Amino acid sequence: MPAYATNMRLKFPILVLILEVVTIISYALFAVYDDGKGHHDTHSQNKTEEEKPLELYPMFQDVHVMIFIGFGFLMTFLKKYGFSSVGVNLLLAAFGLQWGLLMQGLWHLEGGKIKVSIFKMINADFSTATVLISFGAVLGKTSPVQLLIMTLLEITIFSVNEHLVAKIICANDVGASMVIHAFGAYFGLAVARVLYRPNLRDGHENDGSVYHSDMFAMIGTVFLWMFWPSFNSAIAGPGLPQLMAVINTYLSLAACVLSAYAISSLVEHKGKLDMVHIQNATLAGGVAVGTCADMSIDPFGAMLIGFVAGIISTLGFKYLSPVLASKLGIQDTCGVHNLHGMPGVLGGLAGIIAVALGKAKGSAAMQAAALASSIGFALIGGFVTGLIMKLPFWGQPPDQNCFDDSLYWEVPEQEEENEGSLATAEQSKNKAEV
Amino acid sequence: MPAYATNMRLKFPILVLILEVVTIISYALFAVYDDGKGHHDTHSQNKTEEEKPLELYPMFQDVHVMIFIGFGFLMTFLKKYGFSSVGVNLLLAAFGLQWGLLMQGLWHLEGGKIKVSIFKMINADFSTATVLISFGAVLGKTSPVQLLIMTLLEITIFSVNEHLVAKIICANDVGASMVIHAFGAYFGLAVARVLYRPNLRDGHENDGSVYHSDMFAMIGTVFLWMFWPSFNSAIAGPGLPQLMAVINTYLSLAACVLSAYAISSLVEHKGKLDMVHIQNATLAGGVAVGTCADMSIDPFGAMLIGFVAGIISTLGFKYLSPVLASKLGIQDTCGVHNLHGMPGVLGGLAGIIAVALGKAKGSAAMQAAALASSIGFALIGGFVTGLIMKLPFWGQPPDQNCFDDSLYWEVPEQEEENEGSLATAEQSKNKAEV
Amino acid sequence: MPAYATNMRLKFPILVLILEVVTIISYALFAVYDDGKGHHDTHSQNKTEEEKPLELYPMFQDVHVMIFIGFGFLMTFLKKYGFSSVGVNLLLAAFGLQWGLLMQGLWHLEGGKIKVSIFKMINADFSTATVLISFGAVLGKTSPVQLLIMTLLEITIFSVNEHLVAKIICANDVGASMVIHAFGAYFGLAVARVLYRPNLRDGHENDGSVYHSDMFAMIGTVFLWMFWPSFNSAIAGPGLPQLMAVINTYLSLAACVLSAYAISSLVEHKGKLDMVHIQNATLAGGVAVGTCADMSIDPFGAMLIGFVAGIISTLGFKYLSPVLASKLGIQDTCGVHNLHGMPGVLGGLAGIIAVALGKAKGSAAMQAAALASSIGFALIGGFVTGLIMKLPFWGQPPDQNCFDDSLYWEVPEQEEENEGSLATAEQSKNKAEV
Repeated sequence: MPAYATNMRLKFPILVLILEVVTIISYALFAVYDDGKGHHDTHSQNKTEEEKPLELYPMFQDVHVMIFIGFGFLMTFLKKYGFSSVGVNLLLAAFGLQWGLLMQGLWHLEGGKIKVSIFKMINADFSTATVLISFGAVLGKTSPVQLLIMTLLEITIFSVNEHLVAKIICANDVGASMVIHAFGAYFGLAVARVLYRPNLRDGHENDGSVYHSDMFAMIGTVFLWMFWPSFNSAIAGPGLPQLMAVINTYLSLAACVLSAYAISSLVEHKGKLDMVHIQNATLAGGVAVGTCADMSIDPFGAMLIGFVAGIISTLGFKYLSPVLASKLGIQDTCGVHNLHGMPGVLGGLAGIIAVALGKAKGSAAMQAAALASSIGFALIGGFVTGLIMKLPFWGQPPDQNCFDDSLYWEVPEQEEENEGSLATAEQSKNKAEV
Repeated sequence: MPAYATNMRLKFPILVLILEVVTIISYALFAVYDDGKGHHDTHSQNKTEEEKPLELYPMFQDVHVMIFIGFGFLMTFLKKYGFSSVGVNLLLAAFGLQWGLLMQGLWHLEGGKIKVSIFKMINADFSTATVLISFGAVLGKTSPVQLLIMTLLEITIFSVNEHLVAKIICANDVGASMVIHAFGAYFGLAVARVLYRPNLRDGHENDGSVYHSDMFAMIGTVFLWMFWPSFNSAIAGPGLPQLMAVINTYLSLAACVLSAYAISSLVEHKGKLDMVHIQNATLAGGVAVGTCADMSIDPFGAMLIGFVAGIISTLGFKYLSPVLASKLGIQDTCGVHNLHGMPGVLGGLAGIIAVALGKAKGSAAMQAAALASSIGFALIGGFVTGLIMKLPFWGQPPDQNCFDDSLYWEVPEQEEENEGSLATAEQSKNKAEV
Repeated sequence: MPAYATNMRLKFPILVLILEVVTIISYALFAVYDDGKGHHDTHSQNKTEEEKPLELYPMFQDVHVMIFIGFGFLMTFLKKYGFSSVGVNLLLAAFGLQWGLLMQGLWHLEGGKIKVSIFKMINADFSTATVLISFGAVLGKTSPVQLLIMTLLEITIFSVNEHLVAKIICANDVGASMVIHAFGAYFGLAVARVLYRPNLRDGHENDGSVYHSDMFAMIGTVFLWMFWPSFNSAIAGPGLPQLMAVINTYLSLAACVLSAYAISSLVEHKGKLDMVHIQNATLAGGVAVGTCADMSIDPFGAMLIGFVAGIISTLGFKYLSPVLASKLGIQDTCGVHNLHGMPGVLGGLAGIIAVALGKAKGSAAMQAAALASSIGFALIGGFVTGLIMKLPFWGQPPDQNCFDDSLYWEVPEQEEENEGSLATAEQSKNKAEV
C-alpha cells in the first residue's frame, strides 16, 4: 500500500533535527536571561520578579507536571497506544515550549532580546497545552511527523491570537478558558474534520481501553485535577487576585467532580460509572472557571460554574460526541470538545457575564470579541493546518493500524510475556530439581 | 436477590446532587475570600497570610497530592478494585473538602462569614484524610452511596472533635496523629465491625493483589512517603517549628523504612519481603511522629519514633489483623489499624511523654485527654455511622461481588485484551501480505 | 546449590537493624536542628536560611520526587523486577539519606554538631543519587544485602570526593555532572565489572520489558525530566545564578528530547522509536548541563549541550553498551554509562571549557582535576566495593534467577490473575441466574 509510507527513518529525524537546529540558532540570536533590569513591559509580576526571580517557580513546576504527566498520561487510556500518548506528548511539548517561548517572546522584545524568566517559561508551557489538547482530537490517527507540523503551526497561530486577545482586545482570560482551551479544542476538531477517516465510522477494535490503561489514564486525570489551581493562577496578579484564582479553581473542580459523577451514573446503563466521564468531565470545572478565576465571583459562583461544566461535559461525552462523528465527520478520539471545547466556551461566556456584572475591569464586548477571535483563529488555523497535514507524505497510519503503537515504536512482543511465565514455570521446576 | 439493590441509577445521582446543591447554597451564605483584613483569630499564620497569602501554597499542593494520588493509589492494590479505589477516593475527597471547609469554618466565623484561605484549604484537605483512612477499612465492601453518607457524618464528627482538641483541650497535635490518624482508623474499624460479613471469614478470591496492582499501589505509597513532611508541618508555626516538623518527619520516615523492611523479612516465609508491609508500614513513621513533629524532640528522637512505628506496624499486619478479623469480627481491608490506628496511638503517647519532658508547652494530662477524646469520638461516631450505613437500601454489594469494580463501574471486557492480541496477530499477517 | 544462600531471613534483618541502630546513635551524638544561629560555614544560602529556613523546601521536594519516584520507577522497565526496582530503591535511598547527611555533615561540624537544615537535606538526597545510579548498573544481579553494603561504602567514598572537589579543589559543579553522575556511573560500572556473570553473556529471558513495565518506567522518566531544573539549581546561589540554573536545565532538556528522538528513529530498524532511548537518553541533557548550570553560558549554549548529550546518549545505548558487555565484561543493566557516565563527562568537559572562556570563576585546571578525581574515586571505590560485594555470603542471586522479584519478594501468583478472570466469568453467570 504505497500511499502509506509509514517508515519514518529519514523524514522524522530530518524534520526533528532541522526544527531543533533552527530553534537553537534563533535562541542564539534572541534569547538572554532575565536579569530583572530595565523592564519596559507592564505585567504585574515585574517588581516581584526583580527581587525574587523564583517566586513563581513552584507554580511553574505544577504547570510543568500538568503538561508532561497530566496530558501525557490522560491519553494513555487506549489499550495499545500508551507509548505514543506519553512519548509523543513529551516530544511535542519539549519542542512546543521552545517554539512557544520564541513565538510569544517576539511580541515582547526588550532591546531586541527575549528575556527568559519563570513567567515566560510558564507561558511557554501554556502554549504547548493548546497542541496537546488538539493532539487529543487526532490521537491514534496521525504520525509523529504530522504532529510536529501541527505543533509548529498551532503555536505560531496561538501566539498571534493570544497577543491579540491580551494586548489589543485587552480581555480577561487569566486561566485561558478561551485562548488555550477553546482554541486548542476547536483547532483540533478542525484538523480532525479535515483528516476524517470514513473507514473508522463504525469504530476500531483498538479504539478503546483495557483495565490497566484506564488506571494509567487516571494518573493523568488526578495530576491535572490537583494542579489546575496553579494553571489558573500562575500568571494572575500577586496577592489577592492570585489567591482568588486558586480558591475559585479549587472549589470549581470539587463541585465539578460531584456533578460529573452524578450525571455519569444517571445516563449510564444500570447506573454504573463510566471511566471516560470520570477521567475527563471531572476536569471541566478547571477549564470553565479559567476566564473568571481571578475575578471576585465569590466561592459559590466558582462552584456553580464547575457544577454546570461537569454536567455539560458528561452529557457531551454521552450524547454529542457520537453525533459529531456520525453527522459532521468529526472523530474526536479523546472527546476534547467535551473537556476543553464546550467548557472553554462556557468559561468565555461566564467571563462576559462576570465583566458585565462588574466583577472585573474591562468590557463585556471585548470579552465576547476575545472568545470569537479564539474560536475563529482556531477553526481557520486548524482547517489550514489540517490540509497541510493531509499531504500524503507525512507517514500517516493506514486505517487498520490506527491506535497502535507498533507502527512507530519498537513494542515488546506480547508473546514474551507468555513465554516468560512458561519459562518461569520450567525454571521453578528446574530449581526444585537442583 | 432483592436485598441487594445495587443499581445506583437513581439513588446515587440524587444523593450526590442534593449534597452538592446544599453545599453550594451554604457557601453562598457563608464563604468569602480571605482578604487578610480584620482577623480576630489567633493562629500564628495570620501575619504571614496577610502579607503573603500564598506562602503555604506549595505545602498545600503537597498535601493535595497525598490526598488524591497518595490515598487513591495506595488502595489500588486489589486486583479488581482500582477504578473504585482511585475513583471513589476522588469523589469522597472532592465532596469532603467542600464539607470540611464548611464544618471547620463554622467554628471560626468572622463577621458571620468563613474567610477561605490556603490555611483553611489545608485543613479542609486534612478533614478528608479521616474519611479516606476509614475508607481503607471498608474498602471493597461498601457502595459509593454508603461511602458518601460516611463522608458526611465522619467529617461532621471530626470537626467537633478537632475543635475540642485544638481549642478547648488545647492539646498539641500538629501532624494530627490523634485527630486524623487514630480518629480515622478507629472510626473506620467501628464501621467495619458493624458491617461485619461472616461469609468473608475465609477470605474472598478478589481480596488480593496481582503484580501490576501492587505496582500502582506503590505510586500511592511513595507519594505519601515523600510529601508527609508537608502534611506534618503545613500548619506548624512559621520558622523553626515548621523546620523541625519537616526534619523530624523526614527522619522518622527514613528510619521507619528500615525497621519495616527488616521486620517484614524476619517474619516472612524464607525471609522474603511482603508488599503489604512495604506499601503500608513504611509510612507508619509519618503517622507516629505527627503529634510531636514540631517539638524539639531532637533528630534521633524522631528516628526512634519512626523506628518503633515501623516495627509495630509490620507486626500488626502479620499477627494482629488476622486476630481482629477472626476473633473480633473486624475485617480491615487495608489494615488501617496497623498503618493509622496503632501508629496514631503511638504518636499520641509520644506526645504525652514529650510534653511531660517539657519538649513543648501544654500538659501531659491534656494530651492524654485529646487522645481519649479522639478515640472516643471515633468509636462512638463510627458505630452510629455504621448502623446508618447498614440500612438495607444504600446499594451495598452482595458478598460474592465484593472487591469488584464491575458492580458500580463500566469495566472493559478482559476478553477484549485477548481479542486485541489475536487481532493484532491477524493484522500483522495481513500487513505482511499487503 | 549451597553457593547461593539467597534466603535473607537472618542476614538481611540483622544488617538492616544494625545499620539503623548505629545511625540513630550517631544522630543522637551529632545531629541538631539548624536554628539559624552562629553559622561559621560560608555557603551562600546562609543569610536566606536564617530568615526563611523553608525557602528551599519546594526545590527539596522536587529533588525528593526525583530520588524516590524518578529513579524508582525509571528502573521498573524490567518485566519481573518492578517490586525490587521501586522497593529496593526506597530502602537504599531511605538509608542513604540518613547516612549521607551524617557523612557530609561530619566535614562541616559546627560546635561539634551537624546542624540539620533543608540545604543539608537536599545534599543528603543528592548523595543517595550516586547509589541509585550505580544500582542501575547492577540491577537484577544483586541482593538487597549486597546493595546495602554498596550504599554504605559508596556514600562514604562520595562524601570524601565531594568534599575534595567542592572545598579543596574548589571546582564548580552545581548540578553535579561530575561528583554525582559521572561518579555514580563509573562506580557502578566498576562494581558491575567485578560482578561479571559470563552466563548472562547471551542475555537473559527476564532482561527485557513488557508493555506495562515500559509504561511504569515512563512515570520515572517524566518526573526526572520535569524536576531536573530543581536538581541543578537547588544549591545554586540565590537570585540570578539559581534562575540561570533553572533556565539552562529547562532548555537543555528540551533540546535533548529532540535529538534523542531523532537519533533513536535514525538508528532503529524501520525508523521506529525505541523505548530504551526515550526513557533514558531524553534525560542526558539534564546530566550534561549540570556543571555549567549556574554559569552564563546563554540559553543557546545550554541547548547545544543538551542537543549533543541526547545524540551521544542514544548512540551509546545502540552501539557502545553491547561492546562494553561483550568486550569488557561490563553488563550495565540500565545503561547508566549512556545516561549518567558519558553525559556526566560531557558536563565536566563543558565546565572546563566554560571556565576557560570566563563564564564562571575558577580555573579550567581545577575543573579538570575535579573530573579526574570523581572518575578516579569512582573506579577505585567501585572496584574495591565490588570485591566486597562479591564475597559469597551476601545472598546474590543465581544466574537463572536474575532479574526476578520472586527471589526476594512474595510475588502474587500469575495464575491468580487467570483464575480471577475465570472466576469472574463464572460469577457473571451466577449473577445472571439469580
